[in-house]
Amino acid sequence: MKAARMHEYGKPLVLEDIPVPDIREDEVLVEVKACGMCRSDVQLIDGYFRKYADIPTPITLGHEITGVISKIGRIVPAAAGLEESDHVVVAPGWGDGICRHCQIGNTHICPNVRWPGFGPVGGFAEFIPVPARYLIKVDKRLSFETLAPLTDAGLTPYRGLKKLRDAGALGPDRLVGVFGVGGLGGYAVQYAKILGAGARVIAFARNPEKLAIAREYGADYIVDIKGKSSADIGRELQQLVGRNDIDAAMDCAGAPEMVQLAMSLLSISGHYADVGLVGDRIDIPLFPRVSREQTLHGSFWGNNTDLGEVMALAAQDKIRHTVKTFGFEELNDYINRLRVGDVVGRAVMKF
Amino acid sequence: MKAARMHEYGKPLVLEDIPVPDIREDEVLVEVKACGMCRSDVQLIDGYFRKYADIPTPITLGHEITGVISKIGRIVPAAAGLEESDHVVVAPGWGDGICRHCQIGNTHICPNVRWPGFGPVGGFAEFIPVPARYLIKVDKRLSFETLAPLTDAGLTPYRGLKKLRDAGALGPDRLVGVFGVGGLGGYAVQYAKILGAGARVIAFARNPEKLAIAREYGADYIVDIKGKSSADIGRELQQLVGRNDIDAAMDCAGAPEMVQLAMSLLSISGHYADVGLVGDRIDIPLFPRVSREQTLHGSFWGNNTDLGEVMALAAQDKIRHTVKTFGFEELNDYINRLRVGDVVGRAVMKF
Amino acid sequence: MKAARMHEYGKPLVLEDIPVPDIREDEVLVEVKACGMCRSDVQLIDGYFRKYADIPTPITLGHEITGVISKIGRIVPAAAGLEESDHVVVAPGWGDGICRHCQIGNTHICPNVRWPGFGPVGGFAEFIPVPARYLIKVDKRLSFETLAPLTDAGLTPYRGLKKLRDAGALGPDRLVGVFGVGGLGGYAVQYAKILGAGARVIAFARNPEKLAIAREYGADYIVDIKGKSSADIGRELQQLVGRNDIDAAMDCAGAPEMVQLAMSLLSISGHYADVGLVGDRIDIPLFPRVSREQTLHGSFWGNNTDLGEVMALAAQDKIRHTVKTFGFEELNDYINRLRVGDVVGRAVMKF
Amino acid sequence: MKAARMHEYGKPLVLEDIPVPDIREDEVLVEVKACGMCRSDVQLIDGYFRKYADIPTPITLGHEITGVISKIGRIVPAAAGLEESDHVVVAPGWGDGICRHCQIGNTHICPNVRWPGFGPVGGFAEFIPVPARYLIKVDKRLSFETLAPLTDAGLTPYRGLKKLRDAGALGPDRLVGVFGVGGLGGYAVQYAKILGAGARVIAFARNPEKLAIAREYGADYIVDIKGKSSADIGRELQQLVGRNDIDAAMDCAGAPEMVQLAMSLLSISGHYADVGLVGDRIDIPLFPRVSREQTLHGSFWGNNTDLGEVMALAAQDKIRHTVKTFGFEELNDYINRLRVGDVVGRAVMKF
Repeated sequence: MKAARMHEYGKPLVLEDIPVPDIREDEVLVEVKACGMCRSDVQLIDGYFRKYADIPTPITLGHEITGVISKIGRIVPAAAGLEESDHVVVAPGWGDGICRHCQIGNTHICPNVRWPGFGPVGGFAEFIPVPARYLIKVDKRLSFETLAPLTDAGLTPYRGLKKLRDAGALGPDRLVGVFGVGGLGGYAVQYAKILGAGARVIAFARNPEKLAIAREYGADYIVDIKGKSSADIGRELQQLVGRNDIDAAMDCAGAPEMVQLAMSLLSISGHYADVGLVGDRIDIPLFPRVSREQTLHGSFWGNNTDLGEVMALAAQDKIRHTVKTFGFEELNDYINRLRVGDVVGRAVMKF
Repeated sequence: MKAARMHEYGKPLVLEDIPVPDIREDEVLVEVKACGMCRSDVQLIDGYFRKYADIPTPITLGHEITGVISKIGRIVPAAAGLEESDHVVVAPGWGDGICRHCQIGNTHICPNVRWPGFGPVGGFAEFIPVPARYLIKVDKRLSFETLAPLTDAGLTPYRGLKKLRDAGALGPDRLVGVFGVGGLGGYAVQYAKILGAGARVIAFARNPEKLAIAREYGADYIVDIKGKSSADIGRELQQLVGRNDIDAAMDCAGAPEMVQLAMSLLSISGHYADVGLVGDRIDIPLFPRVSREQTLHGSFWGNNTDLGEVMALAAQDKIRHTVKTFGFEELNDYINRLRVGDVVGRAVMKF
Repeated sequence: MKAARMHEYGKPLVLEDIPVPDIREDEVLVEVKACGMCRSDVQLIDGYFRKYADIPTPITLGHEITGVISKIGRIVPAAAGLEESDHVVVAPGWGDGICRHCQIGNTHICPNVRWPGFGPVGGFAEFIPVPARYLIKVDKRLSFETLAPLTDAGLTPYRGLKKLRDAGALGPDRLVGVFGVGGLGGYAVQYAKILGAGARVIAFARNPEKLAIAREYGADYIVDIKGKSSADIGRELQQLVGRNDIDAAMDCAGAPEMVQLAMSLLSISGHYADVGLVGDRIDIPLFPRVSREQTLHGSFWGNNTDLGEVMALAAQDKIRHTVKTFGFEELNDYINRLRVGDVVGRAVMKF
Repeated sequence: MKAARMHEYGKPLVLEDIPVPDIREDEVLVEVKACGMCRSDVQLIDGYFRKYADIPTPITLGHEITGVISKIGRIVPAAAGLEESDHVVVAPGWGDGICRHCQIGNTHICPNVRWPGFGPVGGFAEFIPVPARYLIKVDKRLSFETLAPLTDAGLTPYRGLKKLRDAGALGPDRLVGVFGVGGLGGYAVQYAKILGAGARVIAFARNPEKLAIAREYGADYIVDIKGKSSADIGRELQQLVGRNDIDAAMDCAGAPEMVQLAMSLLSISGHYADVGLVGDRIDIPLFPRVSREQTLHGSFWGNNTDLGEVMALAAQDKIRHTVKTFGFEELNDYINRLRVGDVVGRAVMKF
């Protein structure tokens, strides 16, 4: 089968032919139909993660995976309700099933986690073996190119927003800021409206084209932050909404300056959740965060429950997408485009 | 000033002239512009509450109060931001400010609570003295006749739905049932959509006219329960939504059979919140509730925070109303109508 | 192997020899060393559960199971860390691993749940096959006879108390009542102290011997309720602790009058959790529960996480036991004793 | 009356005679009996807070205040239950009573907050006027010198620990680290045991004398961090408790290196709460915090509810103290001692 693999850090992917993988008796073989491309694919190649986990090569990239069931392992339980030719999405973060986090469903933060696309198997290949527990069956009516990004770009901010909601930060009299409107932020804006219980949503970004998408997807206000100080932006907020701070921040960027901006705009007892990995440093003053009792929630990808909920929204046609599809042969081109920020919305590889 | 007072339990209100009340230095005198009428007004007259609290007469009824500030007490803090001629709604449940519940804002369940409309002062009178803390200023653009019911009919189910949301019972893959579509249920359906984060909403009632309102206000499904058993209704659900149970129940009725119906339809780990006071008995089997880990949340009226949030929704024009206005002289007529269930939506007295 | 099985409802168990069961590749064979006896064993025989689930016979009873690993299935993951001769306890409630409840670890309320002791396999037999996920390894230092009851009698009230704690009902200025001091209540008193964060604990029961155990296990106060009305007991509370109500109730009985007593003593915004199944009816007034915003939490047995926490307490020697051991041949005798309430603490069968 | 006031930033306090203050009708005059001294007194003098709030001089310092009621304002409600000669503690953080935070009892983070000891009135004076709502009556049996520090040193970590508990970070199988054992840390260790529900507590500090106090107050383990790297300490943990990380961190220091140490030891899905203000910078890597879903909770002082709970613990004699008393005339001496870290436990001024 075709597979795009990284044989060496920092080098382009090698598009090659490798054998279709076997499955274990509790796994399912999925024929990949589409797989989204993520900034973290670029970061994986560029070595961002190496100091935390030096994954051995070759690595099959691609972790936003959807496809069709091709084969089912012998002891996959009937309760799973899976059959050949079913359409499925692949939940990321395959845990050991034993640890404290797996016990409550947070398999994606299992200390022994395997992430598809960050090891031997990934979605930039024609087939992938998946433990049955990590498949969610979806309606055949939904297109593969919109399903794919829902497993990360459209999942990660959903979990982040849930953390903000469960912390009590959302409600009719609250303002929620979405920081960064790249692949994830376009979804974040929509989820902020869906989970916000009447909260008004403000998108903050540098790129007018991306801000226009935020507006189209339901942001009540947009703020172009390019070249503006935090104080400037506070004044702009004051004019827009009558106050200069926000109750909740969903940071989809993670660049050091974005963290600082979001924190500087955060209200007393405000909640900040971040999912972005653009930078790798948080450097903020301590006293305001303590004396104003602000909370920072690290949020990472999502688990089966989260993905099931996102799929329920998709089935109700409540999610809009900005997707650009491309072919397997164009993988390295798109990695280069993504590296320089030259993609609006999500790029999805389709077989 | 005009005031409608109950001088004897079980008798019509006496419409009479009494002196305009004085205010204390921390109170505000409100000129009442509109006051909604509630089933509990009828119950108060009919003696429902007497075994719990035998309130001495005369009682000025009317607890859904909105109006205009007429006079401000000397030590009302400037931070309250209140001025003469401001439009306000009156938060119910004036606490002692000292008890454990008041300390966290639940003044409405203070053991020393005073409820306007259930004692000397109420909204079926031209003026009412209100402790400043219990006034919320509102935009003059909003009509008094829609503001009035938001202080009970439109507040009580909001608090109930918040309890369901905070318990984790709402979300994209969940079904929420609203039981009873009287004065409160029409609002409950809307809040279930606003707070539901994508949950689908099913209204259950006996009256087709009321079910039509539920549908108009956003219920995804309606079920006419008249003459049907719980098993019948379960089968009807199965056809409508592909399952025979619901994840969350908002009971706006409180009649014994409605409680039983709602509980019989409740899923494993389902949450039931009730605000209705039609009956005064809950009589259900124990084993299913224990073994399925269901939770019952008693929810009562609302506090300042809740009312502030409802007002924020109103200011965003997110709440629709079914209101019928009438004059002060018609109060006893409308009490009789409400007693026999002959009111759709909310009846509001306007001066 | 020896096994005690029910071949007919309402009849004594048949003590017989049956083949040692096989295991599937993801299961572990456990040699049972001890198995506690529970009121629900008696209820199973007496038909209490039949209207909810008519389990086909023969049934091997016994669900408080501990023992030694005898054999390990081929695909049991190494991460489980299980080896032959390890000591283990068996978590109850084996789910399908797929449903919404299993996804978050609540396998014990899975709609497809299998409960050991309520079907073909149980702990009143020399061997039992257990899915690896439901075994928790324990220190060999801990005695089997105290481990056994920790899987139900010592697990169920732990989960109930956690629900009270997580609801915010426990703390330094709170009073917690434990209702019923049978097999479960003796543990409940201890957990109320451990989880109570300084809350004072009051045990309510009819039997002086059981009340003495409650006192010994840390109850700050005990109240003999025999022949007393709720009002009597309120007055007694007033004398003991200066108030006539309690903030949280842990009902380990579940008899209709106990439910009514506990609810009648519950404070404003109080929380009531029940785990007992003595009766099968809850019949209480509605208005006080609604207007005082009380919450009822059904709580059932426990999941792996709960059992792991209980084992952590056991490993710290923080749990005390009242256990009476008996032999396999005495099973029917002890069922009869338990039926008439003639057991103080927990009776545990040891091989 | 005697009062110690700062007339100029950076200068010693002026011990002078000023008039006894008047009270408003809703205030109470308290005769100060004891007032604890806090690192933040030193920081106030040294200008730490000036970039956030440049409080005008003269400032009467002292915010850990207890005393006796001397006079009661005319409209102080009877429900408050206050009488002359009652012993009281003063809750810090007097809010406007109107804002969103005050509405739910978090008066200490009100945007219009007044903090005693950080403005015209404070506890290093013989009398102080206090709004009645901020007094908690205490048993005369409790000594003033132990009551005083309970309003900050013994309150602040209580609130922090509650945040950790409410986040689900505490329980029988969890490890809680207390970082820094100064005035606050000695209390933090005790609260970690009381709220920990069986969690084991590890104290981390540089000073053997302070570590000995931590041990005496219930820490299960102590770790001297002086001169050790995070990796060293992880190895030491591994030896002590069999793992190299902790589930919850209560940072009572707030120095940049302490924040970094605590975060580096934090487990997957761990919770970190900080109350210390030694430094004013948090500078940590982003990826581990996001990918391991860690949460940082800023926690500040405490509110009436928190203080009431601390007083309930004190009334049960569950809190131990390390207190050194001194006289009014020694105030400047003790400020100098505290500045150089030459105080073990809490220094309390007694009149």
